[in-house]
Parts: sequence; structure tokens; C-alpha cells
Amino acid sequence: MTISTRPSQRKPENLRPVSIIRGFTKHAEGSVLVKFGDTHVLCTASILEKVPPHQKGSGEGWVTAEYGMLPRATHTRGDREAAKGKQSGRTQEIQRLIGRSMRSVFDLKLLGERTIHLDCDVLQADGGTRTAAITGAFVAARDAVNQLLDKKVLSKDPIKDHVAAISVGIYQGVPVLDLDYAEDSACDTDMNVVMTGEGGIIEVQGTAEGAAFSRAELDQLLSLAESGIKELVQLQKAALTK
Amino acid sequence: MTISTRPSQRKPENLRPVSIIRGFTKHAEGSVLVKFGDTHVLCTASILEKVPPHQKGSGEGWVTAEYGMLPRATHTRGDREAAKGKQSGRTQEIQRLIGRSMRSVFDLKLLGERTIHLDCDVLQADGGTRTAAITGAFVAARDAVNQLLDKKVLSKDPIKDHVAAISVGIYQGVPVLDLDYAEDSACDTDMNVVMTGEGGIIEVQGTAEGAAFSRAELDQLLSLAESGIKELVQLQKAALTK
Amino acid sequence: MTISTRPSQRKPENLRPVSIIRGFTKHAEGSVLVKFGDTHVLCTASILEKVPPHQKGSGEGWVTAEYGMLPRATHTRGDREAAKGKQSGRTQEIQRLIGRSMRSVFDLKLLGERTIHLDCDVLQADGGTRTAAITGAFVAARDAVNQLLDKKVLSKDPIKDHVAAISVGIYQGVPVLDLDYAEDSACDTDMNVVMTGEGGIIEVQGTAEGAAFSRAELDQLLSLAESGIKELVQLQKAALTK
Amino acid sequence: MTISTRPSQRKPENLRPVSIIRGFTKHAEGSVLVKFGDTHVLCTASILEKVPPHQKGSGEGWVTAEYGMLPRATHTRGDREAAKGKQSGRTQEIQRLIGRSMRSVFDLKLLGERTIHLDCDVLQADGGTRTAAITGAFVAARDAVNQLLDKKVLSKDPIKDHVAAISVGIYQGVPVLDLDYAEDSACDTDMNVVMTGEGGIIEVQGTAEGAAFSRAELDQLLSLAESGIKELVQLQKAALTK
Amino acid sequence: MTISTRPSQRKPENLRPVSIIRGFTKHAEGSVLVKFGDTHVLCTASILEKVPPHQKGSGEGWVTAEYGMLPRATHTRGDREAAKGKQSGRTQEIQRLIGRSMRSVFDLKLLGERTIHLDCDVLQADGGTRTAAITGAFVAARDAVNQLLDKKVLSKDPIKDHVAAISVGIYQGVPVLDLDYAEDSACDTDMNVVMTGEGGIIEVQGTAEGAAFSRAELDQLLSLAESGIKELVQLQKAALTK
Amino acid sequence: MTISTRPSQRKPENLRPVSIIRGFTKHAEGSVLVKFGDTHVLCTASILEKVPPHQKGSGEGWVTAEYGMLPRATHTRGDREAAKGKQSGRTQEIQRLIGRSMRSVFDLKLLGERTIHLDCDVLQADGGTRTAAITGAFVAARDAVNQLLDKKVLSKDPIKDHVAAISVGIYQGVPVLDLDYAEDSACDTDMNVVMTGEGGIIEVQGTAEGAAFSRAELDQLLSLAESGIKELVQLQKAALTK
Repeated sequence: MTISTRPSQRKPENLRPVSIIRGFTKHAEGSVLVKFGDTHVLCTASILEKVPPHQKGSGEGWVTAEYGMLPRATHTRGDREAAKGKQSGRTQEIQRLIGRSMRSVFDLKLLGERTIHLDCDVLQADGGTRTAAITGAFVAARDAVNQLLDKKVLSKDPIKDHVAAISVGIYQGVPVLDLDYAEDSACDTDMNVVMTGEGGIIEVQGTAEGAAFSRAELDQLLSLAESGIKELVQLQKAALTK
Repeated sequence: MTISTRPSQRKPENLRPVSIIRGFTKHAEGSVLVKFGDTHVLCTASILEKVPPHQKGSGEGWVTAEYGMLPRATHTRGDREAAKGKQSGRTQEIQRLIGRSMRSVFDLKLLGERTIHLDCDVLQADGGTRTAAITGAFVAARDAVNQLLDKKVLSKDPIKDHVAAISVGIYQGVPVLDLDYAEDSACDTDMNVVMTGEGGIIEVQGTAEGAAFSRAELDQLLSLAESGIKELVQLQKAALTK
Repeated sequence: MTISTRPSQRKPENLRPVSIIRGFTKHAEGSVLVKFGDTHVLCTASILEKVPPHQKGSGEGWVTAEYGMLPRATHTRGDREAAKGKQSGRTQEIQRLIGRSMRSVFDLKLLGERTIHLDCDVLQADGGTRTAAITGAFVAARDAVNQLLDKKVLSKDPIKDHVAAISVGIYQGVPVLDLDYAEDSACDTDMNVVMTGEGGIIEVQGTAEGAAFSRAELDQLLSLAESGIKELVQLQKAALTK
Repeated sequence: MTISTRPSQRKPENLRPVSIIRGFTKHAEGSVLVKFGDTHVLCTASILEKVPPHQKGSGEGWVTAEYGMLPRATHTRGDREAAKGKQSGRTQEIQRLIGRSMRSVFDLKLLGERTIHLDCDVLQADGGTRTAAITGAFVAARDAVNQLLDKKVLSKDPIKDHVAAISVGIYQGVPVLDLDYAEDSACDTDMNVVMTGEGGIIEVQGTAEGAAFSRAELDQLLSLAESGIKELVQLQKAALTK
Repeated sequence: MTISTRPSQRKPENLRPVSIIRGFTKHAEGSVLVKFGDTHVLCTASILEKVPPHQKGSGEGWVTAEYGMLPRATHTRGDREAAKGKQSGRTQEIQRLIGRSMRSVFDLKLLGERTIHLDCDVLQADGGTRTAAITGAFVAARDAVNQLLDKKVLSKDPIKDHVAAISVGIYQGVPVLDLDYAEDSACDTDMNVVMTGEGGIIEVQGTAEGAAFSRAELDQLLSLAESGIKELVQLQKAALTK
Repeated sequence: MTISTRPSQRKPENLRPVSIIRGFTKHAEGSVLVKFGDTHVLCTASILEKVPPHQKGSGEGWVTAEYGMLPRATHTRGDREAAKGKQSGRTQEIQRLIGRSMRSVFDLKLLGERTIHLDCDVLQADGGTRTAAITGAFVAARDAVNQLLDKKVLSKDPIKDHVAAISVGIYQGVPVLDLDYAEDSACDTDMNVVMTGEGGIIEVQGTAEGAAFSRAELDQLLSLAESGIKELVQLQKAALTK
């Protein structure tokens, strides 16, 4: 690969420093502050003893997510969605993605008729908020489910595997891992990848911001993402053993 | 490839019958009824001599899209979004995708400070409404821009290439092209691909509905999509010469 | 009557060419594309095995309607009501009128505790969308109810009579039938009339746009409407025997 | 006519006792409490030195109306529209009717670029709130415009004629004038008529609640309305000379 | 105290003329028009045989309030909250205050599972609308509860004491009672006090509009309020014996 | 005072441990994480070079606040206001209080035509979120204004004094300072007090939750609040010198 020109001086294949702090707030069954560099997301997992209408009486549970960004998490203040009276299309897209990603590693039958509700709130944003959210939300969900197992509410673990996410992109012609805001706002192609601990692909969302991209570039990006997610899964595991 | 088990009896690599009818309604600058089998979408392109705030004074134009589904386009009646007072997350995701796809082939500077507003309304749904919408919307946009060129409002063509979209998925273990509703609701992996006439990738959105998918499967799906989109671009060209 | 000065060259007492196409879309129990000249409305009838709260437990059914207009059905693009987050006063007025008109020919007891939900969506507008909607919706409702009779869900027909509607107005001093957009936007008095097949009046809504009108003029308009609706009922019957 | 069976013992051709109290509140340029029997509506007219966008720069003014009902104006408490976050279809229909009726007697050019905003709020309801509102709103508008004339803001009177409204209906087979709630909720046909002081018809809205009605019945109802409105215009004139 | 400079010529310790008219409208179980000078509020009490979700099955009732202001109750027309689609923060603050104040004198157990819903609508505003509303709403609630007692629906009175409210403030350096609009808009400190008939404090809401205020000033204001509320309770009692 | 029975074992006149962390997030001009025991509120101050309409052209600035609570800041998950589409009455009351409190120590003329927008978001709640928010928001505002002074955008300091807030209440008959959730949900009287550094009262909001309270009790509560706020102002000063 070519010499790095990344604003952060990182090598193309390097993640930002990642930290996963469990128990950040006290009320939620799982509460994780996840940091991908200067992107900080608070992920809480709440156990609700009810399910949405479409699951009622099915014997199955549900896993869902909501996403928000504090108004001044960003360089310039954004309007508060609660004050505007609606969530943006971007917010809805992200929270649907987080929910789908979490459900992909859950056995909803084993969860029983209850909901794991994940709330991912961005305290500070520097690119990659949705991938940090997915990576942190998994740990929060894991903590919440562990409580159910510890209390013998559940006898079998409904979580089948880890799940984590990372962004990749082509920045100044070079495929790079884990875009920060400076890269994200200037790159040609931006892709978010969600994978399981075993390396299965859960979601691929690639968008050409400027020029279209080729199959070869797509391949390079996927390889970068694959190795980045492997690293994130290790970090999740390390955080969970603390 | 294996023997087809597709509900429609199609071979894995076959599109549904596609038809692209121009001039379906009379007021819009571009008006196309596009059919991918039993999925029928009315795509209109409106020329508006104004741009959204973020483009004002930039000398550049804008291309945007809205998407809707008639309440009884589907097997069971869905609530009317206008009556509910908001667009669903799904609707917003789709209209954002259509808008991005269209902008990828537009030179907004050459368009000048005006907007091409695409409206994609599903009259009848049988899977693949967003890919039909993108494929039809391009033709409507092309007709609208041709009017601007014919009237000498524009001297240079702001459209750089064709753009079209198709869905692919893994149905009963077999990668197949252009999922209809019966396949879509039962498949393991579902991917929408948007490409240009020259074969550049604009957007890849793959989701594991059930089991995660592998890099190898992703590769097969992309190859299927590539050939399907080539065919769609030929059909767009044929429709435009009528 | 005086020599016609109607933009369409029609005689004062002439309808526009009317066509009533059944089975236009495949999922709805009744699906009719009705055309009054260049006004094209897609009317679907959905059978829902539930009733609104005010009818619950009454043993009676309900018939209701919703109305919408595609954003570019008109000369200039109108805002999408779903995107604005509310239906206009005009939309609500029209859908209430369609619902009342349909209910006037239904025996809700014979229908049983189910709802016929009519959706009238204007694909192309050229004046008279509400009268076309009522005329087409009746045929869609008839088809839906026939299904219930065919399947022996109902043993007695809950539909008591035909219902159809037409607009009349005073254009350049002359009472004329079935106003198109050019007439509608320039006329002094505009009246919508809904009548049954037997000639009973269901609804009369007359508005002086410019000068007030007299009892004599009102009489002339009603006579015109009466003959127009008779013709429409014949066309409904013809369409239903195809 | 047949012997009266009206719950109120009124003769078919009798209005309820009508009172029109000017200056009911002190801030508005016109403020009228109008009573049609037990139906009490507070109508205020506000002069606003601005016009809606569609009239800006036209040199013409605008006349518009809003309608509301206090939650406990009725037998059982209705939800407050401000709390529900939207106005019902009925409310919008009524306020559009009031606005159209007022504009029918205004010369908007002579009014100049300002708005007469009428607010009609029902304090107590017993049927006929919209007709009382129109009848009272005219007097409030008259008072507001008189202020503009007195202050020489206007030199020529923009009001061309009186306007008033009344309901008529067929109750137990008998055409009756000015329905109260007991009649309104039980009658077969209900019609609201708006007329000018000179007897021109501005608006006719007749609805068959049960059985359809005939041309002959419509004629009887219009005659009743005509005489009732004549009486109301006299009462408006009397109130204005006090 | 210093010589009065109040715009109304009142002495600092004087209320405006207060009138409490019961039975102002006919449908509500309690209906009171309360006037504090030129501030006129219509307060109705409705008995609803249901409770909000948080009280269901508790055996206890609920008392709640809604507040509104007619658009032209004020010097300049305010937007109608129903038309804007939401209640302002001010409106919500006031209706929450009225509800809390009423509940403070109710034994919800004795009320049984039903709701007293108070609606306070300002017909004309001249300062102090919330204190007039509380004072009038108590009388309306009293009338409604008396009905329940008279009809033997209740055997024991759930109302424990009177409740009334008044505003006090520092106007041109002088503590004054019952601010009218001229004073309210120019005063330094504005305080609303709610007290029971026995002189217990229910609510104190003091705000420094300009300069901060001292403990000594607060004391003076509370004494003024105390004597004003005593007077109001006498007036409530007098009104209730009529 | 009597022996403490406070759940936290604090003496009646003791605050919880307070910490004020400046620079908690990096984008905002002021960013403070304030902790009153287990109540944690992130307060950011944003400088916006614009003012709301009512201040435009006045030469004066504006200071305003918004308040939010993360869904799982509390014992049980609360609905996300952005998802519900509106802010609760409680939220609006609190953000109006924060805004008024901040404005009380600002000279808006000296601020010039710009806005200090405070966002107070509760990460974890244990009672007293509004008083923590006011106390922290002042420090964030101070930091933001210091930036304007450092950059010579402002030459004179628009902040006239400190402002801080605390809650007091009567818990089991004893007046106590700084209620935590356990006390707040069980106390008879709850009062929030806002004062300046010089000891002037800005806002007093006292509510009897159960029994009414007396003048004597009110006095005791105010004295407690006074000493608590003095302490908070010292803590603000200490934090600002770090």
C-alpha cells in the first residue's frame, strides 16, 4: 500500500484507538461508553418485559434500537430532533441498521417474549458513529443478557455470536479503515460493514460519494473491513472479561 | 448453476419481463411507468426553477426524489402515510437511495440552479420497488433534461451516464436475480445494487435476513447484478429511442 | 342553449369521454381506473375484517374513503402530503364526501362487521377529480362486494343502488356539464352533485366563485347534473357487465 | 304545511330566537356574540396589516376564518384540538366555508393589502354552529371595516353586501328551518345555505343523511332558507344600528 | 405603603372587581365564567367515567385541567394552537399548574375511579389568566362534585378545602396585588401563589423579570397574596350559595 | 435540626458530592459535565451568530436553553421524545426555567446580536436534574463567553453575576437540601430555588405534593436553599479557575 496521507497519520489499515467502558451509567441493564477515537457513543441496553404487537403471543422476543445525537456532538450545533418533532431520515436509517445488526446474532425464541431495547446516543461525533454504536451496543446487550442468565430468567444463551461494525472508504485513492470525520467528508467511497465474530457478513452498505467504484476496489475495502472487525471483536471480548 | 426452484419458474439469472412506458401522464416533464413483472411504479420528473437552501447561490442544481406506495399496492392494505402524518423509516431510506443514485450521474454545475424532482409512486408491488423506481426514474429524468436541452435552456448535457438498479439474493441456497415478493419474503440474503451504464458501482446494500453470508456469495451476487443491470441499461436505451 | 364556447369544444350538456377500467391492479378486491377525459383516478376497494371503534359490536359494517393526488398529477408539482405530515383541508373534505356518498347506497347491517375501504388516488388531474373518484369508487366497491357474495360470505347484497357524481357550473354565462380544469378555474359557479341510480339526490355542493347565483341558475345546473349522472350510471352498468 | 312536531314546538318556518351582541370582548376590532337559540358563537374580527403569500404584492387584501369549539360546548366533552395536535376534517371544512362566504361579499382590491381574520369559537353548541358563525362573523367584519373607514385608512367600503347563513332540513318528513341539535341528529336531509343580502346564493351544501331527497324537496328547502336568511339580514342590520 | 401609581388607580392591596358567574353554559356539570377585572375565563368541569392509564384499577379518581386562550383574547391576535398543531410551553405549564392545584384539595380515593376534567378557556385577557382560571375552576369542580353527591353517586365529599390563586408583583418598587396586563408587562418581579381556604400554601412561583428580589420582598409579596386569596375564597363561597 | 433520616445518610443541610468537569466534549464553546451525586448532566454552550426573530435588529443578543433526558437515564426506560414527536410539558417547563435563569445574569446588549444556546442533557438521573442543569449551564456559558472575550469579539463582559440552583423539600417532616430521587418521590413539599452569586432570588418554585405548607416552612426552606446555593457558587468559581 502507498504512504499514508491520512489526516490522523494513521496507516490505511489502522483503527483509531478504541475503548469500551462498561457500566458507564447505573440504571440500565447494560451501559457502555464506546470510543472510536473522538467519536463517543453511550449505548444502553434495557430489558423490557413486553414485545411489539407483531411478536405478541409468538413466544419470541425482540431486539430493537434507537439512535440519537446530542445537538452539540458535532462541529456546529444541529437542531434537537425532539424539538423539531421528528427524527431525520438519517437517524431512522441508522437505528434500523443497528436493530437489524443486533437481531442477526440473537435467537429470538431463546430470548422469550421480552425486548432488548438499545439506545445509542452520540455524545461526541468524529465520523463512524453508527459503527461505534453497533460495536458498543453489542457489549451492552451482552451485559443485559448476562443478567437474565445470572438471575436464571433464561437458561440458555440467546446470543449466538459477536457482532461488530466498521467503516471503510477510498480516501485520496487509497482504501482506508475506520474513517474519521476529516476523511469521511472528503472521501470518494464510503462503506459500512457489519460482521459476526465468525466472519459472516451481516450487512454491507457501500456508497459512491463521488466517482463510481469498481469490483476490485470493493474487494479491497471488504478485506480491510474484515480485519478491522476481527480486531473489534477481540476488543469486545477483552472488555467483557474485565 | 443448479436447477431453478424459483416460484416464477425463472432461471436464476433472469430478470422479470421489464417494460418502460414513457409519457404515461401528461403534465410532468418526464413521466414513466416502469414494470418489473407485477411491480409497477410511476416515475415523474419535475423541473423546478429553485434549489434547496444548501445549494442557493452555488450556481449548482439539485436532484432529489420522493417515494410513495399506494395503500393497496400490496397484498393487504397499508396505512396511507399522509393520513398517519409521517413517512416511515423505510420510505425515507428508499427515497434517499433514489436521490443519491440519480445525483451520481448528474453534473450539478451543468444543470444550473434548478431542481429535478423525481416522484416514484408504486401503483402495484411485487418486490423490487426501489430498483424499478431507480431504473424508471432515470428515464423520466432523461426526458426532463432533454426538454431543457431542446429548449436551449441548457447547452451542455448534465447527465454523464445511465444509472439502473436491481436486487439479487440467495433463495433456497441459490443466488438469483431480480427477486419478486415470493422470493424476497423467503430469502436469506437480499442485496440491492445500483450501477452506471459503464459498470461502475454506485451503491451496494446487502443484508443477511437469516444466516450471515460469505465473501464468495457476495461475489456471486455482484456478478449476477452486474449482468442484470447491463440488460436494464439496454432496455432504458431502447425505451428512449422510441 | 347558446353556442358552445367551451375550451374543449364540447356542447354544454356533454360529458368528457369516460372510461371505466376494472381490474387495473391485482391485489385489491376491487380496482378501477376511471377516466373523465384527462382526469385519471385509480380507485381500489379493500375488504377489511374489522370496523372502526364507533361500529364495534354493532353488527353493522362501515364504508370509508381516502383520497390522494400524486404530486405531479397537476400542471405544477404539489407538495406530497405524506412529506408535509398532514392532509390538506381540501383532501379531507373530498374524502369525507366520497365516504358519505358510498355509505348512502349501502345497507351497513347487511354488510356485517367489516369495512369496505376505498382509496382514490389521482394519477392525472384535469378538473372533476372528486366526481370521477365517486363514480369509479362505486364500481370498485361493487366488485369487492360481488366477491363477498360469490364466496358466500354474504348472502344478501348490501348495495341498494348505484351512486355517481358530476360537476356542473356556469362558464361564461352558460350552464355546462362536467367542467375540465380550464373551465373550473375560470367559472363563476361550481357545483358537485351526487345522485343515486334512481335519481335521488345524495349531495349538492354549490359554490359561487365570483358572483352569487340565482334559484333559476341553480335549477338549470341541477337538470344538467341529473342527465349527466344518468349517463354515468349507464356507463357503470356497462363496465360491470364486461 | 303540516302540524309541527318539532322538539322545540317551533313552526317549520321559524328561526330560533336570535341575538347578536356587538363588543362582547374588548381587544378585537370586531367582536360579536351571536346566539341562535342555545347555540352561542363568539366571532371576532382582527385586522392584520399583512396578507398570505399568494396575495403578496397583488395590491389585494384577504379575508379568512378559523373555527373552534370549546371542549365542553357539547353534551359530552370533545377532545381539545390543540391537545390532539390537529384540527379535524369537520373543523377545516367549516372554517373554509366561513372564509369563502365572507370573501364573497368583499372587494379585496378595495380592502388593500391587509387581512380580516375571523375567529369563530363555539362557547355552547345546539346545532347550526356554522350558520350562526357566518351570520355573526359578518357583523364582526362589518365593525372592523367600519373602524378602517372611520380612521380614513380606507376611503371606499370594501364590503359589497350582507351575507348570512341558515340550515334547513327534512325532519319527520317536514321541511323545517334552523335545525337545533335534536332535529339535526335525527333528520333525513340537512342543508346549509349561504346567501347575500340581495338574495343571491353563495353556497348550497345539502346532504342526504338517510334517504335520498328529490328535486321538489330541495326546492322547498331553498325557499325556507331564503326567507330565513332574509330575516337574519334584518337582524344583522338592526344590531349594526344599535 | 407608598402612594399608588398603579395604572388602574387601585391601592397596592386591592383586587380588581371579581365576579364568579355559575351556570354560564348549559352542558357541563360545572360551568363558571370568572372575571378578574377585564380578564374573563370560562371554566367548565366535566365528569368522565374513566381515568387515565396510571390510575386504572387503583380505585382512585383523577382531576386534570386543560387551558386555552382564544386567538383574539389579547391585544394582538395570537396563532390558534389547534392550527399550529401544538400547545406552547406556556400553555402546558399553566394547565399543569391548574391540575396540580385542583388535585391538592381532592381526596382521589373518595372520588372513585372517575375524572373531573377542567377546561379553562380565556375569552378576554388582561393579566392573571392562570390565577383567575384556578379560582374559577374550583367553583366549577365544586358544582360538578355537588351533582355527584346530589345523585348519591358519591356518599362522601371528596373535596377537602377551597383553593384559589392570585398574582403579586413588585411594580415601580411597590409590592402590589393582582397584576393587570399593564403592570404585568412592566413589573420587576411576578409571583403566582396558590393557597387553600385554610391558608396552606399549595404553590409559589416567583420569577425575577428584571432585577433579582430579596427575602424581604418575597415576604411582603406572600403577605399580600395571603390576604388576596382569603378574599377570593369568600367570593367563591358567596357565589356557591347563590 | 433533628437527626437525619435521609436515605443517603446526609445531614439535612448537606449537598450531595458535586463535581463540575469542564471541557467534557470537544466541539462546543463550553462543555461541562456536572454531577450532583448520581445525577449527571452534560451542559454545552454553543455560540450562534444569529438571534431569534423577536431580537432581530435590536442590537441585543439572546440566551436560550434546551433540555433532554436520555431514555435510560432513569430507573425504567422512558420514551425518546424525538421518536414520540414531541417534548413533554415537563421538558418544556424545565428548559424555559433554565433559559430564564441564564438570562437573569446576562446583559443582552453587551452580548450583541448573537445567541448563547445551552443544551442540557441528562445522562443519568437521581433527582434534581434541573438544578444541576442550571448550575452546570452557567459554567458552560461562562466558558463560551470567555472565548468571545479572549478573541476580542466582545470587549465588555455581558455576564453580570453567577447563577446557580438547588432543590429543597420537606422530607418526613424535616426541611432538607438537595433532594435525591428517593427523597423527591416521597417528600411532601418540593421547591426549586435559583439565586445569583450576590444572593438575589431569581426564581422560587415551590409545590405542595401532599399536604399544604406554611409560611414558616417556606422560610426554613429558603434559608436552606440560600446556603446551598452559596456553596454551589463557590464550586463554580473553583471549577472556573482550574
